[in-house]
Amino acid sequence: MADPSTSPPLTRPSVQQARELINPHIHLTPVLTNTTLTRLASAPRSPEALRANPDWEEGRAPAAPSIRLWFKCENLQRIGAFKVRGAFYAVERLKADEGWVQGGGLGRGVVTHSSGNHAQALALAARESGIPAHIVMPDISAAPKVAATRGYGANVIFSGSTSVEREAAAAKVIAETGATLVPPYDHPDIILGQGTLGLEFQEQVEGLIETGGGGGGDGEEEGKRENGHDTPYDGAKRKKKKNKDGRGPGLDAIIAPCGGGGMLSGVALSCEGTGIRVFGAEPSFEGADDCRRGFEAGERVEAVSTLTIADGLRTPVGRYPWGIIYERRLVGQVFSVTEDEIRAALRLVLERMKLVIEPSAAVPLAVALYNEDFRSLVEREAGEEGWDVGIVFSGGNVALENLGKLLAP
Amino acid sequence: MADPSTSPPLTRPSVQQARELINPHIHLTPVLTNTTLTRLASAPRSPEALRANPDWEEGRAPAAPSIRLWFKCENLQRIGAFKVRGAFYAVERLKADEGWVQGGGLGRGVVTHSSGNHAQALALAARESGIPAHIVMPDISAAPKVAATRGYGANVIFSGSTSVEREAAAAKVIAETGATLVPPYDHPDIILGQGTLGLEFQEQVEGLIETGGGGGGDGEEEGKRENGHDTPYDGAKRKKKKNKDGRGPGLDAIIAPCGGGGMLSGVALSCEGTGIRVFGAEPSFEGADDCRRGFEAGERVEAVSTLTIADGLRTPVGRYPWGIIYERRLVGQVFSVTEDEIRAALRLVLERMKLVIEPSAAVPLAVALYNEDFRSLVEREAGEEGWDVGIVFSGGNVALENLGKLLAP
Repeated sequence: MADPSTSPPLTRPSVQQARELINPHIHLTPVLTNTTLTRLASAPRSPEALRANPDWEEGRAPAAPSIRLWFKCENLQRIGAFKVRGAFYAVERLKADEGWVQGGGLGRGVVTHSSGNHAQALALAARESGIPAHIVMPDISAAPKVAATRGYGANVIFSGSTSVEREAAAAKVIAETGATLVPPYDHPDIILGQGTLGLEFQEQVEGLIETGGGGGGDGEEEGKRENGHDTPYDGAKRKKKKNKDGRGPGLDAIIAPCGGGGMLSGVALSCEGTGIRVFGAEPSFEGADDCRRGFEAGERVEAVSTLTIADGLRTPVGRYPWGIIYERRLVGQVFSVTEDEIRAALRLVLERMKLVIEPSAAVPLAVALYNEDFRSLVEREAGEEGWDVGIVFSGGNVALENLGKLLAP
Repeated sequence: MADPSTSPPLTRPSVQQARELINPHIHLTPVLTNTTLTRLASAPRSPEALRANPDWEEGRAPAAPSIRLWFKCENLQRIGAFKVRGAFYAVERLKADEGWVQGGGLGRGVVTHSSGNHAQALALAARESGIPAHIVMPDISAAPKVAATRGYGANVIFSGSTSVEREAAAAKVIAETGATLVPPYDHPDIILGQGTLGLEFQEQVEGLIETGGGGGGDGEEEGKRENGHDTPYDGAKRKKKKNKDGRGPGLDAIIAPCGGGGMLSGVALSCEGTGIRVFGAEPSFEGADDCRRGFEAGERVEAVSTLTIADGLRTPVGRYPWGIIYERRLVGQVFSVTEDEIRAALRLVLERMKLVIEPSAAVPLAVALYNEDFRSLVEREAGEEGWDVGIVFSGGNVALENLGKLLAP
């Protein structure tokens, strides 16, 4: 990977530059809305539902926030996840590095270790530039993931499933081939690439609110969004009563999932100076909420061992992301949700939005619907006016065989 | 229901008028494309795959059509299926009938028997007009469907599951309440309402081809559509080399599923005089391909008993639809596919497009991908130029519990 010291500064303008570079390679994924989910998010939860949460303090009044939800559908991105953004940017940056090219980089290619979306993303980005990709995958990886990665022309190398084994295998590939390591999240270029989704999200919501401004009354419009989604095709019409904080109409907050933190920190950069709050979302299962715990302790949690169903979020937050998320305070807070809450959110998206997302992608919606701390915060800060809250659907790569198990009552 | 003799003539202009009337009530659902599926449709099938079909004649060369697929996403329609179109139009027509209104129709409401999408569609349409809806459902209906129908404010009456029992229950409701029957498909107003999706489909594809005309080379564009979908957001850019049959660029054919035939016949009306061919798609299981068999025999098949997984297509084609489909020859041909082919198409849509559709909605795609008669026809008639083929995703209402079973290997 390009030497981090040569990376552009970690700022919003750098994310904008990254966007220029990767735009020809990626989809501008749609932003959708859904009345049923917006209505759910804005209704106080029932005492019965709240009591199911072990953290709930009896007698506390359920939060009554006013939330309008917007969904950025990176499950409809190439390879089915946002990861292509960082991968394409990383490859473009390498190609722009004269030393790397003159050193034979194009022939030696790139390498990473991943069993997930980053593997396919890097394989695709490399193939489109005609350079080799070596992907180290755990030997217990699901066959379709291996096949998909090979389908993008990558050379797949198997390793054990611990991080030590994977890193050793990658080091061996580097020694043998001279390929350049492209890590999944802990690198400035990856962060800047992933952050591009935040810029799109901001513009798309502004555009949808603007164009819809002239529509019918709210009641009328609400009636149109029972089920299924609104796409810009039917207007997704929403009016802001007035501008807030001196900003024009648009998102008030974005909730993004946090695994290694590459995307969350990139989105945070994309919002710097805009007034849009950025929040992280994590599973709480078996300590997967390392970023939330790090926030509380004032120190990054460096190791996590969890088997949360949100399998894209099992990694601890990386060093570069942590610098942005916590040290620069570009993320306001991190919220966690239970496995049951993730499952419930996942089911709602499949049933109500007719979209396939992976469990990790359901975590931010679960925060908006079920995390009372987040919901109280919105009630407190947004008041009656409410907030337009952006939810990042990070990916849609889930084995259909597992969906049934995940959603079993 | 309004007396059929008072319905507008079954013509394209009548579909256009219906569209004006229902437009405020429905979503303009998106049209999507997908490179992987278009590539699959345009690749000859392997001899192994072909031999799996019992009808295959050994030695016959696999068809090599050139097919560009476009998907009309009525799974993203209100209530999750196209059925709201006909239901809203039927209700609007009743409301415009002075005799009906003066006879107390608004207070007496509407009634139908359906366990499926028509039940929810009519319940919703009635609710938005503030009139009562009585829905007769088989007592074996899935609980979520009953709950959803009640959720739209309808009065649910249970009956036995045979058509005789259901009709008797509906007759009893009519006798007791004076409610007006709104049948699910065999009525001109329902046909005209459903046909509105065909008009949208034509215009949307023309628009997408037009706006995309200036894009990069084909190879470049192809590279962008690996997985996930193209939405108009990324251009869905496709160029027509030249106009065909004197028509401008747009769809050459539409394949729609055929159950009772209300939607297929409506789409056929919407294409009359445009040069766009319309084809029907049916499951072959246990004789569910009644419309196809009727075409061959020259006579409508009036009864069917099948448990095809495409549960929306278990009904025989109705009298009014048959008049349009066969007698007026507005449908070119009807093709059928096996249960395995429907399952394979369903899986591709979930995995590759990240969209949830119901099994009935996968039948037209299965025809495009797997029916050699259809594929040979395209090869023969379209030649190298190929066809832009519109696929109707009719709905997305499938119990998630069943998806796992449906897709089990």
